[in-house]
Amino acid sequence: MTQPAATACLASPRAVARSRTDRGQGDRISLSAAITHGAYLCTEDVRSWLAERRLAGDFHVERVPFDALDQWRFEPGTGNLGHHSGRFFTIEGLHVVERDGPHGDGPRREWQQPVIRQPEAGILGILCKEFDGVLHFLMQAKMEPGNPNLVQLSPTVQATRSNYTRAHGGTDVKLIEHFLRPERVIADVLQSEQGSWFFRKVNRNMIVETVDEIEADDDFQWLTLGQIAALLHEDLTVNMNARSVLSCLPFPDSMPEALFSDTQLLSWFTGERSRHDVRARRIPLSSVCGWKQGPESIEHEEGRYFKAVAVAVRAGNRERVQWTQPLFEAVGVGVVAFLLRDIGGVPHVLVHARADGGFLDTVELAPTVQCTPRNYAHLSAVDRPPFLDLVLNAPLSRIRYEAVHSEEGGRFLNANSRYLVVDTNDTQTPLNPPPGYAWASLAQLTALTRHGHYLNVEARTLLACLNATAAQPRGGA
Amino acid sequence: MTQPAATACLASPRAVARSRTDRGQGDRISLSAAITHGAYLCTEDVRSWLAERRLAGDFHVERVPFDALDQWRFEPGTGNLGHHSGRFFTIEGLHVVERDGPHGDGPRREWQQPVIRQPEAGILGILCKEFDGVLHFLMQAKMEPGNPNLVQLSPTVQATRSNYTRAHGGTDVKLIEHFLRPERVIADVLQSEQGSWFFRKVNRNMIVETVDEIEADDDFQWLTLGQIAALLHEDLTVNMNARSVLSCLPFPDSMPEALFSDTQLLSWFTGERSRHDVRARRIPLSSVCGWKQGPESIEHEEGRYFKAVAVAVRAGNRERVQWTQPLFEAVGVGVVAFLLRDIGGVPHVLVHARADGGFLDTVELAPTVQCTPRNYAHLSAVDRPPFLDLVLNAPLSRIRYEAVHSEEGGRFLNANSRYLVVDTNDTQTPLNPPPGYAWASLAQLTALTRHGHYLNVEARTLLACLNATAAQPRGGA
Repeated sequence: MTQPAATACLASPRAVARSRTDRGQGDRISLSAAITHGAYLCTEDVRSWLAERRLAGDFHVERVPFDALDQWRFEPGTGNLGHHSGRFFTIEGLHVVERDGPHGDGPRREWQQPVIRQPEAGILGILCKEFDGVLHFLMQAKMEPGNPNLVQLSPTVQATRSNYTRAHGGTDVKLIEHFLRPERVIADVLQSEQGSWFFRKVNRNMIVETVDEIEADDDFQWLTLGQIAALLHEDLTVNMNARSVLSCLPFPDSMPEALFSDTQLLSWFTGERSRHDVRARRIPLSSVCGWKQGPESIEHEEGRYFKAVAVAVRAGNRERVQWTQPLFEAVGVGVVAFLLRDIGGVPHVLVHARADGGFLDTVELAPTVQCTPRNYAHLSAVDRPPFLDLVLNAPLSRIRYEAVHSEEGGRFLNANSRYLVVDTNDTQTPLNPPPGYAWASLAQLTALTRHGHYLNVEARTLLACLNATAAQPRGGA
Repeated sequence: MTQPAATACLASPRAVARSRTDRGQGDRISLSAAITHGAYLCTEDVRSWLAERRLAGDFHVERVPFDALDQWRFEPGTGNLGHHSGRFFTIEGLHVVERDGPHGDGPRREWQQPVIRQPEAGILGILCKEFDGVLHFLMQAKMEPGNPNLVQLSPTVQATRSNYTRAHGGTDVKLIEHFLRPERVIADVLQSEQGSWFFRKVNRNMIVETVDEIEADDDFQWLTLGQIAALLHEDLTVNMNARSVLSCLPFPDSMPEALFSDTQLLSWFTGERSRHDVRARRIPLSSVCGWKQGPESIEHEEGRYFKAVAVAVRAGNRERVQWTQPLFEAVGVGVVAFLLRDIGGVPHVLVHARADGGFLDTVELAPTVQCTPRNYAHLSAVDRPPFLDLVLNAPLSRIRYEAVHSEEGGRFLNANSRYLVVDTNDTQTPLNPPPGYAWASLAQLTALTRHGHYLNVEARTLLACLNATAAQPRGGA
């Protein structure tokens, strides 16, 4: 009889106590980050490998009207869009009432929007293994219909629960067994995804080490963290799920100092959770105010935020459509940025306690700036998001990191954002920032990724990029 | 202009990095735990002080029918019971569908029940201050209508958000300002309350140190942790809120070893969250199946679980009723117990990943046993909760801790449970327990109380009691 997955990592212990920390693990991670030449593929060849996998798959994604969706339908009554099997996800309506500080009795905002609901937690897992004494991470070249370039570098495994449960007579998710019965866990945490587009979606972010022989086909490559760091500097190369999982890597905590103690930082965060009052209620998609539904899209009346659309996916020369599905299509390119400054020799970023209607718990820590500027184009300067202009006007010499990344291509179409880290100083960004913002050290954020619902997915992407920047000095300056 | 509370603890920083941990704080907490004679009231006199405050208040609580509730009413349509102001809380219905492992596709349970909904997070705060070099904690003798003995030892402050916001023209919560603009935070975390009776209720658990002169009236006393530890061994003396806040005390982490590494323990917990699928949906109270509503109570058709009832509270000799309110009345006395064993010289307890319909996030860590045995009396031995019989049949020599405590007296009437810690060994409880259970060291649990939604409120009570047991050796053996 198979052991339940959840308890496998605790199987057959002996009655001895061991160290609660995995000594040496941090150093092994740092070593992998320092190695820019892996045991297998050269970093320079990753791009051509991805292109080759794109070619081999011969993928075609085309927009279709909603009525060309196969197996998907707008449910009578609610108008919610779902799959006939009840699997995958649904597009529903959300009604959000948010009240700000000082104690949830401050300014009130209220809106309705479509939202993606996917209540099952899937697994995003990266398998790693030592070659020549260096940890390598098994990355997959994976096609997702919403990616602008279709194929990106992805975790070893991306699986919804339906993918890997026995309910569907065995699984076709390659290498999933390493995550259901992990040998040695390096990270394992339920992390949130976009709170503005998803309703309380989480995925299990796992990094697992193996000593097994792994049979991986042409869609997989072993890369060091140093190689992945280099690739994180390229546009549209490392997908969102991979960035999220990589952000959970337990880099050694070599910075025992920070502007605020860990207790102060957690207290500030608790205060932010307390002073916001967010009430989000699912409503029928057909009743959402401010949005209009056409045959090919559901969009905001002023053309802002995003659209719900549908696509058909074909692979190979076959005429047959492989599948159809709805996606949320971004309107405009996002800007996601951390302001970074040195405080007493320790790098800190300015985090924002952001309230989104789709968060499970009120607020999460977001980048300093996270928005689609086009959505604010109609507002006067004073009503634009704080620090946006500072980021947009930053001189090149202050840009520590910049790349365009796209969000989850299985749900979002052409959802691209410029991810930036901008050096700043006391004149532009005082140590005592406006309410809702606080300076946290990178080590403090890394420590918080052990737990869910602290850093949002955009902040996790930037944390992964910052770690990559540390591994590979900036190219721009 | 007043600074917003949430940012106050971060005010006016200088551009220097400081230690992220509060060095010396753990030792100061340990010192207070070791001191059993406080600078003020003797421990032996706390009981008479509580009795005296009870007498001074001259409180009378009597049951009344629902139609004698003032300002409360069953809302037309839903039948939900709420206050006309929209404040306090409501009693609504809850529909829960829970599927167990291996991956949320296992055995299915489905039920409906009344539930208390109180979406605002209040503050439960204990103020502390050094006297004669020893930290003392300011405890309040507070009446709550559901307490069997009315007055118990409570945190310095218990305030709902409505209590302390300006919306109601200033506040009458004594000493609240120390928590809105804290000087030195020792703990500050949003913690959950009963997931079987509350719908996603959390309170902000705070411990704050001050150096100010504090003017506290006859309802307050400064006590050391050693004194409070002694009082935690007495029945019905320390209220639930105080126990919860005390569980968040950052005792020094002097146990760097455990059966499982911290990563393994978190991975097990993540697996437990993932393998349960809990869907809880609020429904109209009037539509709840399996429960019947009479003029004086709403109760389960087989008389199990709890009843919703109403009480009127009078204080002093005045005829006038001070207020009326509904309460949930417990049916039977609960049993809440940790099994405790030494593993390699380190004390561990057997935690249970418990799914409750009212938890925000699927499962939380609960005691080994947490139930009201009477609810299971109709079941055969094999269907009774795991380890219940082992706890109930434990010989006195194995009982490390035992006291009767009541749950939150502002919402629950006569909700008493026997809290126990039972020594065990390998024969009775193997290191490889059934799915859903794991051995965690006390230090690991203490570390997790820095974050919300790990330990449930019953586990936090037992953790506070275990710390009290460590401070004061068992009396029984």
